[in-house]
Amino acid sequence: MTAIDYARQHQQRFLSELKTLLRIPSVSTDPAHRDDVRHAARHIADELQRIGLENVRLIETTGSSPTGHPLVYADWLHAPGKPTALLYGHYDVQPPEPLDEWLTPPFEPTERDGNLYARGAVDDKGQMFMHLKAIESLFATHGKLPLNVRFLIEGEEEVGGEGIAHYVASRPDNLHADFAIISDTSMFAPGLPTLCVGLRGMIYTEIEVRSARSDLHSGLGGAAPNSFNALAHILARIKDADGRIQIPGILDAVVAPAADELRSWSSLPFDEDEFRQTVLGAQAIVGDPRFPLFERMWAQPTFDVHGIIGGFTGVGAKTVIPAKATAKASMRLVPNMTAADALQRLTDFVHQSCPPGVSAEVRLIHSAEPSLIPVNNPWIRSAAAAMTTVWGRETVFVRSGGSIPIVGDLQRHLGLPCVMMGFGLADDNLHAPNEKFCIRNFHLGIESILSFLESAAALQAEA
Amino acid sequence: MTAIDYARQHQQRFLSELKTLLRIPSVSTDPAHRDDVRHAARHIADELQRIGLENVRLIETTGSSPTGHPLVYADWLHAPGKPTALLYGHYDVQPPEPLDEWLTPPFEPTERDGNLYARGAVDDKGQMFMHLKAIESLFATHGKLPLNVRFLIEGEEEVGGEGIAHYVASRPDNLHADFAIISDTSMFAPGLPTLCVGLRGMIYTEIEVRSARSDLHSGLGGAAPNSFNALAHILARIKDADGRIQIPGILDAVVAPAADELRSWSSLPFDEDEFRQTVLGAQAIVGDPRFPLFERMWAQPTFDVHGIIGGFTGVGAKTVIPAKATAKASMRLVPNMTAADALQRLTDFVHQSCPPGVSAEVRLIHSAEPSLIPVNNPWIRSAAAAMTTVWGRETVFVRSGGSIPIVGDLQRHLGLPCVMMGFGLADDNLHAPNEKFCIRNFHLGIESILSFLESAAALQAEA
Repeated sequence: MTAIDYARQHQQRFLSELKTLLRIPSVSTDPAHRDDVRHAARHIADELQRIGLENVRLIETTGSSPTGHPLVYADWLHAPGKPTALLYGHYDVQPPEPLDEWLTPPFEPTERDGNLYARGAVDDKGQMFMHLKAIESLFATHGKLPLNVRFLIEGEEEVGGEGIAHYVASRPDNLHADFAIISDTSMFAPGLPTLCVGLRGMIYTEIEVRSARSDLHSGLGGAAPNSFNALAHILARIKDADGRIQIPGILDAVVAPAADELRSWSSLPFDEDEFRQTVLGAQAIVGDPRFPLFERMWAQPTFDVHGIIGGFTGVGAKTVIPAKATAKASMRLVPNMTAADALQRLTDFVHQSCPPGVSAEVRLIHSAEPSLIPVNNPWIRSAAAAMTTVWGRETVFVRSGGSIPIVGDLQRHLGLPCVMMGFGLADDNLHAPNEKFCIRNFHLGIESILSFLESAAALQAEA
Repeated sequence: MTAIDYARQHQQRFLSELKTLLRIPSVSTDPAHRDDVRHAARHIADELQRIGLENVRLIETTGSSPTGHPLVYADWLHAPGKPTALLYGHYDVQPPEPLDEWLTPPFEPTERDGNLYARGAVDDKGQMFMHLKAIESLFATHGKLPLNVRFLIEGEEEVGGEGIAHYVASRPDNLHADFAIISDTSMFAPGLPTLCVGLRGMIYTEIEVRSARSDLHSGLGGAAPNSFNALAHILARIKDADGRIQIPGILDAVVAPAADELRSWSSLPFDEDEFRQTVLGAQAIVGDPRFPLFERMWAQPTFDVHGIIGGFTGVGAKTVIPAKATAKASMRLVPNMTAADALQRLTDFVHQSCPPGVSAEVRLIHSAEPSLIPVNNPWIRSAAAAMTTVWGRETVFVRSGGSIPIVGDLQRHLGLPCVMMGFGLADDNLHAPNEKFCIRNFHLGIESILSFLESAAALQAEA
């Protein structure tokens, strides 16, 4: 019997066990659910122990994390000379509110039309649980694993993940591995096996413009500098009306996607107008016209304003010339940009772009480096091949326009390439009412992961 | 004995009576002071009765005013063939907070260094009270007045003045007059008799930009239109970085100041750098470089942004692409611009300036027409001559960059030219702690007003 046969024979039990996990309301942001979060951690630790992992324990993180939800760690390291996989996931979930929009209660998992509905079904309990069931299938079939594995499962992903970030940054010995697997992303289309190989980084800033000692009456308009008018000029200069970023030199570091990736992108099933209507809900898709859409979202930086603090925003009219205007604005970064270089160039350009009579300051709120793993990386090639076999379709390579901080942390601090092998779908209602996970994807996800681990075992360990 | 002699003989009593009025905390915006505001109205009505006015009464206004503080009306109409003056002022005051910054309590009038310190000392109880004392001096000296007078004194000026606006718009018979006197402005410099002959008008708007059905995650940046970035482009287009308004045709209606006015402006004692430091508190004086400073503030329109609603303005970072951004922004208008024309041109230009993927709407919050009275108007010439005699210096003509809605209302609905004869000083701390009125200005203001009324009596009534 193969591990895949085992997984197929136990599909009903696997799904039933996932439901048990989903019934624990491990809402990490809500202090009222603090015990539930810990309950979920213990439940997973017990399951890891049961299926054959060793050194199972909860790790209390330090650092500035306000919540204190533990990491769950476990390993099995009895495959000498074989590679070591680090399996990452998270057991905490988003709050379920608004409750009255759920068709069935968020913590009573319900099957409907081939989907399992519950908070956390896909983000990330269901996907993280696939890792456990893949390992169980391998253990049960062979009495051992074909490679070394470590589990690291966090409970603060939905509240910023500071605990795991501090832990990874401390480079503990027990995170030594050759690659990581993360199942917390989506497939590009139903039934289309998808690997996410790139994430954008970010600098999130506050751009503060000051025009006077204190607010002035707008009767002085025509003489008095206005921080808001000035800020509008600065923001408009940074990115022109057609979406081209105008900061000198900032695009120099951008690396064009490799031919393999571009080929994969050109094969993606994609309808721009449907994307515009259903995903953006906008009159038009915009952006730098020099680049095709996927390049704009995945392989080019952005500059987006999120809000502007200051001045008068009440009801009615107040004729004030505000002395201070502060934009919250961020840049998404792509390889090989660095957060430090982008911040310096943005800051210099803001200073150079100040209209007469104002000064400006750029403050960094947080940053994340971009990450990219080449599509011809051996772990990626191996993962792609395994998925192609399981799903019966060629695996596609995509990137994400967003950021997953743990990926950058694992890469930077531990040198781990991350295989982002996700099985969510675009309509899974992440962070929203009626979150679901396609049950077929849950089962084929388990098969994909165990097939990948089996083939990865044959690759040379880098260590 | 002349009326001026009388006023001089009774200076101590006039000041003492003003103090009595200032002790009434008639804070119109504070419901807790509702009875005090009415007490101030009755006190003034009693004083008008005492000094010889007739038909004294409180007028309850209707309309949308939320406060319901009454107008005080009185008249004396026994000078047939003579002009009729409408004397306007307000008896309500700003809140005194922050109280701990007052050197002496705001409602315990205190003399110090030739000034009288109290909330309302100059804005506007002290200046309004000059009108009463000028009339008293004329009555006491001659047993009658040289012309017809009407008093109209409001108690909602500091809360928007909606009541009087509705009343004036109804064009009641008892406001028939030939000109108005308003003492609610300042002298250009200490000891320099000043008439304000022009006020800017205004359109106060909300410019709303929409980019999508709902907020989006900034991982979609590069494809998704951003209402804030788009709004920055629109605002930057309306007025360039050097302060030039770029709305096509909007400056066509602007009338250059008359030679007489420009001559008066060029004679004003003015230090640009001191103005920059003490009034603006800014690094630089800005504005359209094609016009000298006084023209920019008094005779050219402005476009100022007051605040921007929407998006994320909390602590930290939220990677949202806001679907909606709404700027509060206003234009100050100058003769012969009209609010309707300016609004139409602004709206058209905003629509034309929308970057791809967004739409915009301009909503009017309120408007005021600009007003200007020529410096060779007979009432102005008469007032200037009276002030020159009293103060011993040539009267200067200025305008205000702000708006006084009642001036526009009196002009538009009743056809009244307004003589703005004010005696405040730049350091009087209007609306701030330690408000004061220069006591010499109070007395010379009374003399200026009664002298003007005496000479105005000799002018032909327009009616």
